[in-house]
Amino acid sequence: MNDSATLWWDTPTGCIRYVEQTLLPGEYRIVECRTVERLAEAIRRLEIRGAPALGVAGGYGVALAAATAKDGTYKRFMEEVERAAGVLRATRPTAINLGWGIDRVLSAVSRASDTVSAKEIALAEAEAIAREDTACCHAIGEHGARLLPDSCTVLTHCNAGALACSSWGTALGVIRSAVNAGKDVKVIACETRPLLQGARLTAWELVRDGIDVTVITDSTAAYLMRVGAIDAVIVGADRITRDAVFNKIGTYMHAVCAKYHGIPFYVAAPSSTFDPENIARDVTIEQRGREELSVMGNRTFIPPGAQVKNYAFDATPMELVSAVITERGVLYPPIDPGSVAAPKQRP
Amino acid sequence: MNDSATLWWDTPTGCIRYVEQTLLPGEYRIVECRTVERLAEAIRRLEIRGAPALGVAGGYGVALAAATAKDGTYKRFMEEVERAAGVLRATRPTAINLGWGIDRVLSAVSRASDTVSAKEIALAEAEAIAREDTACCHAIGEHGARLLPDSCTVLTHCNAGALACSSWGTALGVIRSAVNAGKDVKVIACETRPLLQGARLTAWELVRDGIDVTVITDSTAAYLMRVGAIDAVIVGADRITRDAVFNKIGTYMHAVCAKYHGIPFYVAAPSSTFDPENIARDVTIEQRGREELSVMGNRTFIPPGAQVKNYAFDATPMELVSAVITERGVLYPPIDPGSVAAPKQRP
Repeated sequence: MNDSATLWWDTPTGCIRYVEQTLLPGEYRIVECRTVERLAEAIRRLEIRGAPALGVAGGYGVALAAATAKDGTYKRFMEEVERAAGVLRATRPTAINLGWGIDRVLSAVSRASDTVSAKEIALAEAEAIAREDTACCHAIGEHGARLLPDSCTVLTHCNAGALACSSWGTALGVIRSAVNAGKDVKVIACETRPLLQGARLTAWELVRDGIDVTVITDSTAAYLMRVGAIDAVIVGADRITRDAVFNKIGTYMHAVCAKYHGIPFYVAAPSSTFDPENIARDVTIEQRGREELSVMGNRTFIPPGAQVKNYAFDATPMELVSAVITERGVLYPPIDPGSVAAPKQRP
Repeated sequence: MNDSATLWWDTPTGCIRYVEQTLLPGEYRIVECRTVERLAEAIRRLEIRGAPALGVAGGYGVALAAATAKDGTYKRFMEEVERAAGVLRATRPTAINLGWGIDRVLSAVSRASDTVSAKEIALAEAEAIAREDTACCHAIGEHGARLLPDSCTVLTHCNAGALACSSWGTALGVIRSAVNAGKDVKVIACETRPLLQGARLTAWELVRDGIDVTVITDSTAAYLMRVGAIDAVIVGADRITRDAVFNKIGTYMHAVCAKYHGIPFYVAAPSSTFDPENIARDVTIEQRGREELSVMGNRTFIPPGAQVKNYAFDATPMELVSAVITERGVLYPPIDPGSVAAPKQRP
């Protein structure tokens, strides 16, 4: 089972390295990132994506800002780090983990007494986030694997795999842990329009691991449920409020159809994804550009006079969720995200 | 309102002409088709698609076979025409209209006494199918328009427009007729993976007609239903058995979600689409090639080791259908397709 990292701190060069996800599955390229501006661009362009990975990126981003801040007074240093944090925070509004990772490292830095120790503390805290994320994914995997039958076909949407985390994955972590435990798990990966993270990333990860994977269009899922070809749905999450799970657009559709067909619908996410102080209507759903739907290669598929709505996420109400699998255990209905929320560490 | 034809017989040159739909919306090209083999290729490649249009193409295809048959005995002539009909019939298995159009012209031809009159009869019958299809679409439009509120947003999937028929359209015919009747109808067009007929064809048709249209990914539909942005769903059909509506993959998902949200789900189709002698499990669902999902432009989006399932259609059970709009009127539950089925005209 492949457990290589998605993004990490490269100590010799003092920069962030990451797998450039927009190029997969055609090309596996590691990018060196030396500035916060480049990191922000990588997040906006989805070179780095996936809620837990964004938490790790947020942490390393603040560490990078600290490492590259100009020498000067501690006040000037902190202003520069906080400005960089603001740049990173503004890149994507829906996944909570990005802000959580940024805040966690900012909070740690604020306890430093000088710029030298601040730089060390920032990096140590970012490294802790990455390490804990991997541990979380393995714990989620262990808890979730017990929910799956010994032989089953699981449907997943988008990519909640190693590429969406520091490694291992949340939804795919459950599948990996189940396979490791000797279960016969086949995966149906929804391609996940518009950016095809299911086809490009989930299929790529599972093929590398030798796990049986079949790609379908997103709209084929309900039909496969009807003919009895799906035993469970497992997805990740970008934010879990008191009442709803925010995840890639299409998740809600799968939840409604799973409910209709009596198929369990599981959400796998670390507690850093939880936002129990808010409810669904408090959350901004990111809308992305028209070109993600309309342009592929050298062709334009939507005529100029037509409008386009490109919501990146949707909200699935908690009543459609069979269980939320976290690193601390499995939550069953009535699901109370407050019971396992990550401790608040705002600066 | 644009009511130009999708395919027709060109009398001066004695061939079929049609709008090449795979090139839209970038290019509007009329193709001249002089052989049954080229017509069969056009149907397989979806240069011509849409159930009613396939009925018209089937009819014209037999007329073309008759027109181009070598002179000889009447028996030889009929063998050649029937061989051509077999080639056309084998192109696509799910839409019933193709075989219906072929059979209707074959049946007419079989009543001829010599090859000269057979050629005339074949063309006259094919022209009648095309003329009747346009009349059907307008009648469907009139009946269906009454079902829509004076101001509403309608979701549609794939293309059941003029391009799917001889002209005007079934689902889009309802929308056009409602707009003609002074109603304020906005359209949400699902892009319809993998071949994007919604983005490419439905949006193109509606923009030409000045009707407000917004393109979304297929998986966004349920979310828009949840937030109250959809008042009704209208789709076409490729075959309507006693118990189910066969239509583009994704139709079933929309039907399940419409039911969950209490939104009416309408099917608009001429009676030539009805197949009341069969039930859903008798029907072959066409599976198409992997490359339709995996290749776009010069990029491959699915890694070689992953499998792909590309069902072109799904079956929506009749209990999820609020009404079927036909040229003869509207069928409400319990819907009995047998009550308006087209008369059988097999040779």
